[in-house]
Amino acid sequence: MRPGDVIQTKRDGGELSRSQIDAFVTAAARLAARRDAGGWEPYHLTALLMAVYVNGMSPAETAYFTQAMADSGKRLDLSDLPGPKVDKHSTGGVGDKTSLILGPLAAACGVVVPMMSGRGLGHSGGTLDKLESIPGFRVNLSEAEFRAALSKVGLGMIGQTADIAPADKTLYSLRDVTSTVESIPLITASILSKKLSEGIGGLVMDVKTGRGAFMKTRERSRALAESIVSVGNANGLRTVAMITAMGAPLGRYVGNSLEVVESIETLKGNGPPDLTELSVKLAARMVSLAGLGTDAEAEAKVRSALASGAGLEVFRKCIEQQDGDPRVIDDYKRLPTAIDTTPIEAPRAGYITSMDAEKVGVVVRMLGGGRSRAEDGIDHAVGVIVRAKPGERVAAGDAVFEAHHNPARASAEAFQLLKSAFDIADAPPAESPLILEELA
Amino acid sequence: MRPGDVIQTKRDGGELSRSQIDAFVTAAARLAARRDAGGWEPYHLTALLMAVYVNGMSPAETAYFTQAMADSGKRLDLSDLPGPKVDKHSTGGVGDKTSLILGPLAAACGVVVPMMSGRGLGHSGGTLDKLESIPGFRVNLSEAEFRAALSKVGLGMIGQTADIAPADKTLYSLRDVTSTVESIPLITASILSKKLSEGIGGLVMDVKTGRGAFMKTRERSRALAESIVSVGNANGLRTVAMITAMGAPLGRYVGNSLEVVESIETLKGNGPPDLTELSVKLAARMVSLAGLGTDAEAEAKVRSALASGAGLEVFRKCIEQQDGDPRVIDDYKRLPTAIDTTPIEAPRAGYITSMDAEKVGVVVRMLGGGRSRAEDGIDHAVGVIVRAKPGERVAAGDAVFEAHHNPARASAEAFQLLKSAFDIADAPPAESPLILEELA
Repeated sequence: MRPGDVIQTKRDGGELSRSQIDAFVTAAARLAARRDAGGWEPYHLTALLMAVYVNGMSPAETAYFTQAMADSGKRLDLSDLPGPKVDKHSTGGVGDKTSLILGPLAAACGVVVPMMSGRGLGHSGGTLDKLESIPGFRVNLSEAEFRAALSKVGLGMIGQTADIAPADKTLYSLRDVTSTVESIPLITASILSKKLSEGIGGLVMDVKTGRGAFMKTRERSRALAESIVSVGNANGLRTVAMITAMGAPLGRYVGNSLEVVESIETLKGNGPPDLTELSVKLAARMVSLAGLGTDAEAEAKVRSALASGAGLEVFRKCIEQQDGDPRVIDDYKRLPTAIDTTPIEAPRAGYITSMDAEKVGVVVRMLGGGRSRAEDGIDHAVGVIVRAKPGERVAAGDAVFEAHHNPARASAEAFQLLKSAFDIADAPPAESPLILEELA
Repeated sequence: MRPGDVIQTKRDGGELSRSQIDAFVTAAARLAARRDAGGWEPYHLTALLMAVYVNGMSPAETAYFTQAMADSGKRLDLSDLPGPKVDKHSTGGVGDKTSLILGPLAAACGVVVPMMSGRGLGHSGGTLDKLESIPGFRVNLSEAEFRAALSKVGLGMIGQTADIAPADKTLYSLRDVTSTVESIPLITASILSKKLSEGIGGLVMDVKTGRGAFMKTRERSRALAESIVSVGNANGLRTVAMITAMGAPLGRYVGNSLEVVESIETLKGNGPPDLTELSVKLAARMVSLAGLGTDAEAEAKVRSALASGAGLEVFRKCIEQQDGDPRVIDDYKRLPTAIDTTPIEAPRAGYITSMDAEKVGVVVRMLGGGRSRAEDGIDHAVGVIVRAKPGERVAAGDAVFEAHHNPARASAEAFQLLKSAFDIADAPPAESPLILEELA
């Protein structure tokens, strides 16, 4: 099949046939392995990606494309492990550490959680980076080690191995440099091809919306949620999606090691209300998707696992199982800590009315806590603590943020950006819900 | 300037700024020279080309893009040569040998014609290939030789040198394999960037329309003609366009050496009416664009140059000047001749009602007279003579076509295709004009 003919079909707004999709995905997988791709070159792929960006894909087309992407690599078979396997995935936000909380909670309720996550890129954090702030914690388990973790702990938290959906690796890196990232069918296939490879039967998708999210508008977020739910279910993966607000950072701590602290505090029952609530709701959907109760029963189980400390104990075992130091749970000083803290003060008294999570994420990256390029190293200790969240009252001179930084990267520019990352007014803002919508 | 930002502008339907166009075109020119293109790779270019294909370009944008493409290479300065310089360009057809006729006729009327042409590709022929059927004829003149030809003969017929619009070379080869050829702004810029580099002040554009043409519909042909006229004039090149029918082959002879014979016959006054008429009309526009008379005066001059044999004498001198054997003019046996001829007969009596020029062009290529890939060699001797054109009456068994072929490529498949390349009915078809429209 000539690449130009496949491109032409999509250029003219047509639906790609299964054999056309197979040719496209096979080419991307072979290029990932630096193998001959039968006449396909990266410049064919980017022309096709742009045509998909502009002309879209039908639900059936996206579903088959997603399946082909998953089939381009290894698909884990966990059927020999007893218990229902369910995962959660988020489109990414700032301060979004729910994976570290709901994974243990869902596992404590009997769900097997084979979680494969990514690293932070751009302004949003990544679960792997957060876990790696724990001394010794290994995210690169072998398949046997991963299976052992799932079997003994009910939870394994690792990175994607190179043999998972290799076609996505090629396509993602090309999309990144040709402005074709923000396409709903392409995002859907990228996320779900990897989730289909995990050997799970259910997926809870947290689609973030707002200015700290990838999708800035409610409409785009809903379109993505609908696409993911439809394509997941079409591929035999029971999928539900929640659309949740990402205006301000989630919780109060942003930055890798700081987010581990807040996650542990949350599992101890001392978490901030927004983070606790969202983690509980997402975990509850995992439990009900797993067939372990109705939504209401599932939520009661999760709350009980939180109150009893059962979730915290799973997290402790998970850390141990993956060679991390479990003493961090009782001694946060064992986590990397920044040398300096700098408060960002309220210039006047009043209510915090809004906060720009994206700016906070950018600041953490500027301080060294995130990456601009995939190959950058990061400083796990740095971050930002939100001392006053939207709706809270401050006096003039109160700290709104507290930047945690190390001497090498104490960036005046970063502090300046934080000063522009919130608004103060005399009246409190209207309360806005965190969970906006649920699709199943 | 990051490639992704330029791509994003066009992806979202915006107008590229001059500096964005400069970045794009500079990158294409550098890649043509195998030089570092400052972070641009072919896969950026194809994503951008697809975005242009889908979202188009404004007239102002196309005009600047064309200028930048021309400026990516050498622009000939012919101002030291006396006389008005005017060229003609055709979008390509089957049996379209007008360049060999109108070039000499216009030159005989006092126009300086610095004609840079291409080779045949696909089903359409190319002026260079036709000229090279003349023994010894060189189309690769040096600049000094080209200037000498223009100065002495008033006509030079050469190929584009490597330093003409190098950006177009990169972009054209990428468009060819990514289904982004048929875009009006991209075609406009590709054609006119090369014409702007010729140092001419006027251009007559022959936009072919119909099933033997690149543009199959009248609407698309008109849109292309309008774009070329507008962009040519915006760049200081006085441009007129004629939209002409390309349903059946033009004239009766198709194939390189056969078309040279028919061109010489036409210059001798014995040409078929359609070919003679179109050549005269196009040459007349060249003469009037050159400022050598009104349209009516120009046409009278051209007809006189044809009748007196002055055009034929220019062609003879042109052949001599470019090292060809001028004796071909009086002795067609000196041109390559095919060994075998095979008639394709009318299966019944009646009128030829239609003819598929594209199929005839494909047959000539199958017989070895054209290229499937740019690097293929060709057989100048082979071709097809149209013995019965649309509107003409045949008896059963009369030859409609006569294939001229050599033993190595006597393709039964080609003869079969010729059998399907015409229709016969009891009544003659409605007469259809050759020149459909003129835009200036």
